Amino acid sequence: MQRSIATVSLSGTLPEKLEAIAAAGFDGVEIFENDLLHYAGAPREIRQRCADLGLAITLFQPFRDFEGCRRDRLHKNLDRAARKFDLMQELGTDLVLVCSNVQPDALGDEQLLVDDLRLLAEHAGARGLRIGYEALAWGRHVNTWQQVWHLVRKADHPALGVILDSFHTLSLKGDPSAIRDIPGEKIFFVQMADAPILAMDVLEWSRHFRCFPGQGEMDLAGFLAPIIASGYRGPLSLEVFNDGFRAAPSRQNAADGLRSLLYLEEKTRVRLAEQAVAVEPGVLFAPPAASRYDGVEFVEFAVDDAVGARLGGWLKRLGFAEAGQHRSKAVRLLRQGDINIVLNAEPYSFAHNFYEAHGPSLCAAALRVDDAQAALQRAMAYRGQPFRGLVGPNEREIPAVRAPDGSLIYLVEPAGAGQSIYDSDFCLDPSATAAGGLQRIDHMALALPAEGLDSWVLFYKSLFDFTADDEVVLPDPYGLVKSRALRSPCATLRLPLNISENRNTAIAHALSSYRGSGVHHIAFDCADIFAEVTRAKEAGVPLLEIPMNYYDDLAARFEFDDEFLSELAYYNVLYDRDAQGGELFHVYTEPFEGRFFFEILQRKGGYAGYGAANVAVRLAAMAKLRASAGS
Amino acid sequence: MQRSIATVSLSGTLPEKLEAIAAAGFDGVEIFENDLLHYAGAPREIRQRCADLGLAITLFQPFRDFEGCRRDRLHKNLDRAARKFDLMQELGTDLVLVCSNVQPDALGDEQLLVDDLRLLAEHAGARGLRIGYEALAWGRHVNTWQQVWHLVRKADHPALGVILDSFHTLSLKGDPSAIRDIPGEKIFFVQMADAPILAMDVLEWSRHFRCFPGQGEMDLAGFLAPIIASGYRGPLSLEVFNDGFRAAPSRQNAADGLRSLLYLEEKTRVRLAEQAVAVEPGVLFAPPAASRYDGVEFVEFAVDDAVGARLGGWLKRLGFAEAGQHRSKAVRLLRQGDINIVLNAEPYSFAHNFYEAHGPSLCAAALRVDDAQAALQRAMAYRGQPFRGLVGPNEREIPAVRAPDGSLIYLVEPAGAGQSIYDSDFCLDPSATAAGGLQRIDHMALALPAEGLDSWVLFYKSLFDFTADDEVVLPDPYGLVKSRALRSPCATLRLPLNISENRNTAIAHALSSYRGSGVHHIAFDCADIFAEVTRAKEAGVPLLEIPMNYYDDLAARFEFDDEFLSELAYYNVLYDRDAQGGELFHVYTEPFEGRFFFEILQRKGGYAGYGAANVAVRLAAMAKLRASAGS
Repeated sequence: MQRSIATVSLSGTLPEKLEAIAAAGFDGVEIFENDLLHYAGAPREIRQRCADLGLAITLFQPFRDFEGCRRDRLHKNLDRAARKFDLMQELGTDLVLVCSNVQPDALGDEQLLVDDLRLLAEHAGARGLRIGYEALAWGRHVNTWQQVWHLVRKADHPALGVILDSFHTLSLKGDPSAIRDIPGEKIFFVQMADAPILAMDVLEWSRHFRCFPGQGEMDLAGFLAPIIASGYRGPLSLEVFNDGFRAAPSRQNAADGLRSLLYLEEKTRVRLAEQAVAVEPGVLFAPPAASRYDGVEFVEFAVDDAVGARLGGWLKRLGFAEAGQHRSKAVRLLRQGDINIVLNAEPYSFAHNFYEAHGPSLCAAALRVDDAQAALQRAMAYRGQPFRGLVGPNEREIPAVRAPDGSLIYLVEPAGAGQSIYDSDFCLDPSATAAGGLQRIDHMALALPAEGLDSWVLFYKSLFDFTADDEVVLPDPYGLVKSRALRSPCATLRLPLNISENRNTAIAHALSSYRGSGVHHIAFDCADIFAEVTRAKEAGVPLLEIPMNYYDDLAARFEFDDEFLSELAYYNVLYDRDAQGGELFHVYTEPFEGRFFFEILQRKGGYAGYGAANVAVRLAAMAKLRASAGS
Repeated sequence: MQRSIATVSLSGTLPEKLEAIAAAGFDGVEIFENDLLHYAGAPREIRQRCADLGLAITLFQPFRDFEGCRRDRLHKNLDRAARKFDLMQELGTDLVLVCSNVQPDALGDEQLLVDDLRLLAEHAGARGLRIGYEALAWGRHVNTWQQVWHLVRKADHPALGVILDSFHTLSLKGDPSAIRDIPGEKIFFVQMADAPILAMDVLEWSRHFRCFPGQGEMDLAGFLAPIIASGYRGPLSLEVFNDGFRAAPSRQNAADGLRSLLYLEEKTRVRLAEQAVAVEPGVLFAPPAASRYDGVEFVEFAVDDAVGARLGGWLKRLGFAEAGQHRSKAVRLLRQGDINIVLNAEPYSFAHNFYEAHGPSLCAAALRVDDAQAALQRAMAYRGQPFRGLVGPNEREIPAVRAPDGSLIYLVEPAGAGQSIYDSDFCLDPSATAAGGLQRIDHMALALPAEGLDSWVLFYKSLFDFTADDEVVLPDPYGLVKSRALRSPCATLRLPLNISENRNTAIAHALSSYRGSGVHHIAFDCADIFAEVTRAKEAGVPLLEIPMNYYDDLAARFEFDDEFLSELAYYNVLYDRDAQGGELFHVYTEPFEGRFFFEILQRKGGYAGYGAANVAVRLAAMAKLRASAGS
């Protein structure tokens, strides 16, 4: 299908928007009238520019408050339409979006609406133009697609058809399933927008909180499937009003928009297949199916020799064993349980460049996947950037894609005994034995700039078929932190994404110390939290100190005996319990050199969260630490 | 009354909050439990710190989900209460806020609730403590003050009383008037918060959008008046959950909080007087009444000699006359109609310091006022900072206060002929004649950092008794701009305040060029826009160019003949019409050296706005200008 986007969805001047839209790979563009009004050149210049960029002008929008207008205004409104028809012809587009009348004095008589729409269609049709009629969710009398289709059918004019917009239907909890019964050729245009589910006025919600498909919580595949089933094969266009998008870099944002359409197409194709609706090949995007993910194979820190020595020492105090040295590079491997940590201090490497840009930081993570090549092909189909590093003799080349922050995501298949990447690339020390009982990486939390969250969510959802939990809001002493966790289908991979719009929170400090986004904390799970913490404490791991007042409150909230409570307090172990009785025990380390930190946790009874109830006390303790480091 | 604030209203650690609260001049503080939980010391240390700072701990809060809890939890909940009573005694406060149960399984039987509340009161009373019961707007069964008072009265225990919170009542459009019938001694505590009126879920609204009294849109005086009438004389405390406040500098924000309480007290005093309710003197804040304001007497730009020469040239092209030279300082006066513009290039002056900090900018504005000394006294009563500059021989000392950005607001009384400040301080040129017909300053628009808006609104509302219009949202090509206009009671002074949370809008550029907030545009009104613009154009004033597409759209929207439209377009005049037929004609200049700009406007038929419909086209034209200046 033709992939299109409304200019209102992006930031910048009209020429900047068109450039970004073309660069992202869209086929068409809806011209939002105000963008044209603010443009200093003639409409025909925009026509030419679009032609040069290979963009069809799929729609001119909106034309407001026509049908059912006060009778003394009808003639004036027809004049207004005629002027806009002139403009459309200069632009070289034949379709205009007419949205349902919102004026308090609009008339609602059905026959009158039908007559008005037919009259407008006659005027348009006489000039070879077409009218697409759309229901606004806050229209005075018309606010559902069912009403629109009813009026269009009664008006019965070839130049009059239906425009469907996912937000206007789904925001009112409308049922789109019967759209399949509209003849496809009477649907003139389809606009798609997602949104988080918010309990607020629908007009405000629509104007400020729309987002690209897959970034919100609406069932857009459920909306698009009956449209495809109807036979509609026209443009699929994004129309997103979003305060953040108005200010976001337009190239990056347009690329996200295109990716979101591909994602929607894939989900819709799957939905239609489930419903046994046949669709010709090539209509909807069909990338290789997602691979199965099974945890983190390794993580890689960019370091230099000195930092590597200190971080290695930290990790050994956490119970890791020095397991091997790379055959040809300044790269070390530390291991414990199922956890592999690579410290990369190799000059002239990707890691070195990353280190130069961001300082000591996580520069790569390897995901365990059942078919690495298929996973890479899928990622590339979704416009992911593949990465090829320098590969030495006898080294394995590992497929990789770049994450939105430029770090790497390696894709690694399980290997038989002696066949692993560690066996091929490292001189392993067979006698190395981990001192601790940490088992695997439970989750890795990222700090992102506030405007980056939606982009990351879409990246993981589309390339890797992850899902996203609902957003959680957490109080730092110096502002709010918002967190949204991504997880792989089997939940073996979990990535909480954290943002903050304030300047002095832990997240803001992480961002400024990394000069960019990045992993700011890694959680390891274990089978016996007290054994691990005892060992770590004795080994000199600096654990984050938790105030006694926290434990006094635990005592008030739960039935712990005093001895157990004082054990929790002594080891700075935090506690949470979910509604089903699942339990979480967890401790945090202080940050390594003011940067990333580690968590040791034990889940019991199916606890699936991240201890959100304890994040505020952790953030407060970290703020105190920053303050004392600063003083 | 005792003035108090909840720690949750401010940013920072608990000790930082207490410092800020004391510095602002509060008498007391509500300790929000989580602030204590996150504090690393013992509760008795907080008790001592408050004592050292002269702060009473007026309340410990909240204690949740007690009354009507599931019967199997009652005993555990009493244990929980006992532990919090221990904590309160260590803190040295006798009052705890118990908020209405929000659990889905909470019981609603009236007698059971009464019994539970009495039981809790008995336990508290036995230890010399008191229970204040408050209705949350989203309580499961109890969500109005009427229910709370009914239950408290039935429970009938001396250690049980009512806590009132303005937000919980006003958010549900509750009627507070009958509060006057509660015996004052049964009201144990009063919490005040304002909020903008938002059509959204009340819990989200409460948690993120509360603000200080006077910053929002609720009738807080209407809430407090019946409380005072009831005989309540206990603490008046601010409890504000606000995302911005969580990150705002706590000293400044606490000072705003205290000012908001003073403002609320004054408004309540006036309200009670209107209702003929007698209140003993000293109970409510009683500053000198606001003076009458009558427009801008002069504005003063901080310049150096070179900038002054260039800006003077600009102003003369705009029709201003060189009217005088200061008797002893490097200060010039330009005049036209009722407009006086001072260009101050004096070294070792306030203006010079301002120039050093902000570059060429408006450093002072003088308001015409009927009683300058009373206005100054009122400003100081509201904790405004008075300013005294260097006064030369034979010069007039003009009362002044500092605006929140450090610029000056002079207060000037009308003077008889030959008695003005210009007569005393300047050598006036009696032959100076303005070439143009600009009449007066219609409005001055300020660019503020986003987090500063509420503070400025409160400053003008309290010190000068201005009112604030509703917020308007305006699209810049690179993000949204929000605008809220202040006006004096007779609307002779109008100050639109503009903010933007995005980095590349016109407002963001103004802020970065000033290194702080400031006036970024001054509008002059006139009786004949075309005469003025013709003159300005001929004199070489660079007018902001408006795209032809804007005029094509005007043609579609209004019944103008082509000749008039082409005149509008030729002179780059923008047009707006309000619902009552009032009309605005206005043109903008390009910015002076990339900084502030001027507007010439003509209002007809009572048009009272600022041309919001045209701001987007102006912002787009300015963005284009910045882009071409940058390229």
